[in-house]
Amino acid sequence: MKFQPPKGTRDFYPEEMAWRRYLEEAWRRVSVRSGFEEVDGPIFELLDLYKVKSGEGIVSELFHFMRTGGETRYALRPEFTPTLARMVASKAHALPKPIKWFCIPNLCRAERPQRGRLREFLQWNVDMLGIEGPAADAEVIFTAVDLLRSLGLSPRQVKVKISHRDVVRRILLRLGVAEEKVLDAFTLLDRRDKMAAEEFGRAAAALGLDGTTLERFNQVARTRIESHGSWSAVAERFEVPEQDIEDLGALHEQLEAFGVADWCEYDLGIVRGLAYYTGTVFEVHEISGAERAIAGGGRYDRLIEMFEGPPTPAVGFGMGDVVLTLVLQDKGLIPEHVAPPVDVFVLAAQESARPRIAPLVAELRAAGFHTRFGYRATTNVGKLLKEAGQCRARFAVILDEQTVEGGIVGLKDLQGGQQTQVVSRELVGHLLRAAEPAHAG
Amino acid sequence: MKFQPPKGTRDFYPEEMAWRRYLEEAWRRVSVRSGFEEVDGPIFELLDLYKVKSGEGIVSELFHFMRTGGETRYALRPEFTPTLARMVASKAHALPKPIKWFCIPNLCRAERPQRGRLREFLQWNVDMLGIEGPAADAEVIFTAVDLLRSLGLSPRQVKVKISHRDVVRRILLRLGVAEEKVLDAFTLLDRRDKMAAEEFGRAAAALGLDGTTLERFNQVARTRIESHGSWSAVAERFEVPEQDIEDLGALHEQLEAFGVADWCEYDLGIVRGLAYYTGTVFEVHEISGAERAIAGGGRYDRLIEMFEGPPTPAVGFGMGDVVLTLVLQDKGLIPEHVAPPVDVFVLAAQESARPRIAPLVAELRAAGFHTRFGYRATTNVGKLLKEAGQCRARFAVILDEQTVEGGIVGLKDLQGGQQTQVVSRELVGHLLRAAEPAHAG
Repeated sequence: MKFQPPKGTRDFYPEEMAWRRYLEEAWRRVSVRSGFEEVDGPIFELLDLYKVKSGEGIVSELFHFMRTGGETRYALRPEFTPTLARMVASKAHALPKPIKWFCIPNLCRAERPQRGRLREFLQWNVDMLGIEGPAADAEVIFTAVDLLRSLGLSPRQVKVKISHRDVVRRILLRLGVAEEKVLDAFTLLDRRDKMAAEEFGRAAAALGLDGTTLERFNQVARTRIESHGSWSAVAERFEVPEQDIEDLGALHEQLEAFGVADWCEYDLGIVRGLAYYTGTVFEVHEISGAERAIAGGGRYDRLIEMFEGPPTPAVGFGMGDVVLTLVLQDKGLIPEHVAPPVDVFVLAAQESARPRIAPLVAELRAAGFHTRFGYRATTNVGKLLKEAGQCRARFAVILDEQTVEGGIVGLKDLQGGQQTQVVSRELVGHLLRAAEPAHAG
Repeated sequence: MKFQPPKGTRDFYPEEMAWRRYLEEAWRRVSVRSGFEEVDGPIFELLDLYKVKSGEGIVSELFHFMRTGGETRYALRPEFTPTLARMVASKAHALPKPIKWFCIPNLCRAERPQRGRLREFLQWNVDMLGIEGPAADAEVIFTAVDLLRSLGLSPRQVKVKISHRDVVRRILLRLGVAEEKVLDAFTLLDRRDKMAAEEFGRAAAALGLDGTTLERFNQVARTRIESHGSWSAVAERFEVPEQDIEDLGALHEQLEAFGVADWCEYDLGIVRGLAYYTGTVFEVHEISGAERAIAGGGRYDRLIEMFEGPPTPAVGFGMGDVVLTLVLQDKGLIPEHVAPPVDVFVLAAQESARPRIAPLVAELRAAGFHTRFGYRATTNVGKLLKEAGQCRARFAVILDEQTVEGGIVGLKDLQGGQQTQVVSRELVGHLLRAAEPAHAG
């Protein structure tokens, strides 16, 4: 009975790891080009940190522990936002604004593993703090779209579903929901699809929603607005004055400026479960609704204060690796080869040349070429070239009698098929002219 | 009172993170070019996994926990080797040989934080399985040296100190240590410098070492052999037959073949504390002995069997980020700029041109250029160019009346100082000819 990885966690063998690196590098690339700087924090935090925004209720969803003989309670991070808020709060005045950070943490949640949900997963976090207004929201959404596009997805396959808590709040107030019940109404909107009809009816009644008003509430929850819709038409559809939805209109203008409006639609049923969101909220979904949300985020202008920092406007999102990978698999967007390509495969065609392998391999590697060689005790060139082909090497370098006697090696281009002879000590220079070494430095 | 990171852990603000990425990328680069494939495992494992090679004693050094309502005991990984052994054992027959894996895990140990030792740190792991003999040992050591050299270190600053358990064992046996006490003698060699003289004397006597024999034992422990020493001279020095140290001689030949012999010296006092090493053992040290070991490893041919896999020869090492960084700092080898460079800074010289910023920024970013812009409400070109300079942008793109009216932008090379005018829709093409976008794709 061999040991297994813990339930809900993953082993990353080379193939799975190459895919993870592909995703991480895509996340990193679009983050950097949008001017976000990478940060990270500890894998575990003081347990109390997670109660600040989520209360005691969070504890059972955490893996928490103490050191043997210690008294401090720690928890594995279930999300990165509390760490980010702590880090911003403790250096708020020293950090230049805007703070544009990204992070690719692994997160751990003590929940039941299921499709799209694991106990340990990766999550790309993108956050922008110190800037208010829809331009910042749009820039953050642009970065999410930039990633989706760079992985080959199109607006016909995924959509950013956007809502705005203030807009929904104003609509709810006009429907007759009391100010102090707006948060409950958000929760009801969020959990609507997961509730039985009867349970939903009771909860709605408790908020003062019934008859026409309840119908209208359901209408709001079901409202999808294509991005090309006019905002007057939208106001008409909700039977609210245009000024009530002007925040969404302003965001829409900014999304158009960033060229991503066609990736977005407005869905007033999206409120995000978390109480700390304050304005724009959004989720990225596969268009048929086949999977959980690919990403989710929004504006959280009061969170840094909750962590004893100064008032700091903020907007950000998180995107996990699990659902994203499922969607990319479904769309056939997993490239066949994601492992780093092999530049050179060195082989000895004669026993006498074998001692020349190691020095040459060492020289090629130090020059930045991804270099492999045959470990099996064979000088069968056919077999060795086959091995070179299997690892998809670009070049084969063949060592033989001529190498031992005259310092001449054979150089075979495994893509083009040409074979030439090169003086051994000029090989690195020769290869440098033929191919940029991907791993130099 | 603001929240702090847990004791012994670190926050990675952008500057610290840029350094961490620099190290991780260096580790990854030399691993890949030597043909190692990246792997990873869960951040926590079943607690029992860590008892296989370390016994019950390890438990107090681990952060361990259970899920609320669960019965399985987990522990944060204090090292990667048990995960690697589990992964290899469970797929041993399916994995092509040799297995050449590297990993850059974060590891957690519940020990007292001190200089060079934290409760959470990164460790580069390089392992080669399925190949026996000194050539594999030398290739792994080459990879360690390749890293040290690529970071700017020289053999005058750091040394790989090598020993061989079989060689030391044979010397100990000739000194009169009984076969069944050899492991105790290893432990004594390893802990020698940390023990009081009296305590050491008692432990040595228990192994049957006293008088001349103890003196010789101490001599062995203190023995440093420069790599250029002849092996006959070495045998003479130990007063042992040459055949007793031939394993080290064979390794030395391979290290010469890989061109790293000048980075190595032989130190029979190095045994590594861990009972599972079987042959070659080594540590990388700053030459003055100023810090803890930079890296440590060796051959562990019986470990995979302990995890219920087939007999599998194996050699590998781990290198932590903490001591390595201290050494690089001490040697002045921390580059000034390690953050990803900014390609373009877009600014509006006139209020009317401001709405043109977002579309252009979006276009440049999607093309792979790391693009920033000024968030402050100013059209003062001097101030904005200063901001562009502060983030070390390569180019500034200046939008003004001409942009609004004729689609013309100013392009200033912030390194050379030249300024030209470019048609806005040709800007990306123009920049692509001037500079490779580092973040395309």
